[in-house]
Amino acid sequence: MNARLNSLDMPVPDTRSEAAARARQQQLTKPPGSLGRLEELACWFAARLRSPTPQISRSEIFVFAADHGVAVRGVSAFPQSVTAQMLGNFANSGAAINVLASLEDCRIEVVDVGVAGDAELPRGVRNERVRPGTRDLFAEAAMTDDELTSALGVGERCAREAVQRGVQLLIAGDMGIANTTAAACLICAFTDALPEQVVGRGTGVDDVGLARKREVVSAALARARAAAGGAQAQEAGLPQTGRVAAARHLFAHLGGLEIAAMAGLYTESARNGIPVLLDGYISAAAALAAVMLEPGTLPWMLASHRSAEGGHSVALRALGLDPLVDLGMRLGEGSGAALTLPIIKAALALHRNMATFAQAGVDGATS
Amino acid sequence: MNARLNSLDMPVPDTRSEAAARARQQQLTKPPGSLGRLEELACWFAARLRSPTPQISRSEIFVFAADHGVAVRGVSAFPQSVTAQMLGNFANSGAAINVLASLEDCRIEVVDVGVAGDAELPRGVRNERVRPGTRDLFAEAAMTDDELTSALGVGERCAREAVQRGVQLLIAGDMGIANTTAAACLICAFTDALPEQVVGRGTGVDDVGLARKREVVSAALARARAAAGGAQAQEAGLPQTGRVAAARHLFAHLGGLEIAAMAGLYTESARNGIPVLLDGYISAAAALAAVMLEPGTLPWMLASHRSAEGGHSVALRALGLDPLVDLGMRLGEGSGAALTLPIIKAALALHRNMATFAQAGVDGATS
Repeated sequence: MNARLNSLDMPVPDTRSEAAARARQQQLTKPPGSLGRLEELACWFAARLRSPTPQISRSEIFVFAADHGVAVRGVSAFPQSVTAQMLGNFANSGAAINVLASLEDCRIEVVDVGVAGDAELPRGVRNERVRPGTRDLFAEAAMTDDELTSALGVGERCAREAVQRGVQLLIAGDMGIANTTAAACLICAFTDALPEQVVGRGTGVDDVGLARKREVVSAALARARAAAGGAQAQEAGLPQTGRVAAARHLFAHLGGLEIAAMAGLYTESARNGIPVLLDGYISAAAALAAVMLEPGTLPWMLASHRSAEGGHSVALRALGLDPLVDLGMRLGEGSGAALTLPIIKAALALHRNMATFAQAGVDGATS
Repeated sequence: MNARLNSLDMPVPDTRSEAAARARQQQLTKPPGSLGRLEELACWFAARLRSPTPQISRSEIFVFAADHGVAVRGVSAFPQSVTAQMLGNFANSGAAINVLASLEDCRIEVVDVGVAGDAELPRGVRNERVRPGTRDLFAEAAMTDDELTSALGVGERCAREAVQRGVQLLIAGDMGIANTTAAACLICAFTDALPEQVVGRGTGVDDVGLARKREVVSAALARARAAAGGAQAQEAGLPQTGRVAAARHLFAHLGGLEIAAMAGLYTESARNGIPVLLDGYISAAAALAAVMLEPGTLPWMLASHRSAEGGHSVALRALGLDPLVDLGMRLGEGSGAALTLPIIKAALALHRNMATFAQAGVDGATS
């Protein structure tokens, strides 16, 4: 991660609201600092929602689903058909993310960005199919550059619509059998970490499957990097554009349609000054890609949980993000993000609603 | 901690409901294990609430407040008057725990177990004053054995009343200037850890205050242990009773009225087969004392958060408990426990409401 230049047209957090929030925290009836990260959260949202006393009254979840050609390589514990079957489960509110969205009164929209097969979509699932699953990234580029643009555009449109509805926090979730393989490729590509550090068991492959998955990732990385030589050379002399072009090349070769939609949602949300709450492993891969394409996206990202998939920590470290909780989750769908929403809302409610020392007639610290 | 014998009259968790819950988790539409600790939580509550699909529809918070004679030793960053002032803040719903209780729709009751001074209690605060603050534990026993019994009894009564109202989960919180000094004494006494490992800055004493606090704790421990020689010797030949008598001796010498009320709530809750959600440092000291008095209390305890007060981890380790979150909080009042309630409720909602593979027509894992 060395792409940290801010684009001129990206909004930046509001430091005056943040300072006002920080001052307020010192006046609330508690020892200074005693609410720990909840105090930081209040100040973080103050800067992003441009208010000394921010509130999240509307948050939305988009679950992007797509298939992965690399599933034919035996890298997942589940058959590819599960992606389409889970669309039905989402539509019937039977999945984990449905339960969590309902508890937090979040609007949830399930978007098919490219599930394989041509079955009719379940009622309520949005059709934004770019193509019926990516190509096999072991053998060839997963997407063309045009397909990547289309998939990014799906997420961008979703973010813009949410902004129109007045959202204050966005969550992107994923569904796609074999997508931890694509995510591992992207995390390696964008952090220079090695496959041994990044490839995990995903939904639960056995030792043989894990070894196969590592080989697939190593081979795909070598293929995509070799193919990048030409593209990068053409951009010599234009460092920013060259970096973005190289990132797009790797993203198209190694990514997934749903991962691209997530990245598009992240960048477009940032462009509109709306923070995003990251989920787990797939989300972190999308976040890395988004920051490579648009470095100004980073200040709008908050990490919710640390996934049990070991490589997640590699991605979080590269992003410089420290997640709120570590509960051994590794489900995706946006579930880790949705689970931490009440902690964030509690932090903001404490910040808004606690009495100050002056209001309560309570003495402050003596030392 | 070696007092692990279960009393014959303590209820034990229901392993059949737990096994049924575990089987259900394998059928829900997610990779097995992918909800991490949320799955464990569902099974833990299944065993305690005696249902394969448990639900927490009623949880209650008791905040126990009392003063500490040892405050005269300059061990806190806040003046003793703050304990009484905070009663007013609780009564006016201005404290952190009020905000969190309101978010989770928890009944909250504030109980004065022994705040110093004779000011009239704010409306809505329950009067259970055992005495106007403990004696200075640096110089003498904080409580007599009778006072300890009375303070334990306050918590026991509160727990019984909550059980009558149909509670499924109980939280005890604390308020008492200088109570981290008493808690540090208890944690050292019950774990044999050294004051350097257990004494922290509490609400925020400076380096001089911290050194003083360590000296006070060391001296108080030596005093209480020396005084215990005679009492323990009398009990020789009756190991269980002797251990309980020794624990009571240390608790009376080194504890606090609110800490005893918390311990009483914990043991009585367990006797009624109702789980408790521990808070932070003070709560852990009370939990250790409760388990020393009544080992069968332990299976009913769940740790919510890891406090920023370093010695909290010593106490949690002795209890064998691993908290759900670590957010750098160190406020007390029950705030850490209340903050994690939505995570627990989410775990149970996922367990109850997610579709099974069969219901959703989704294929399970292939490996």
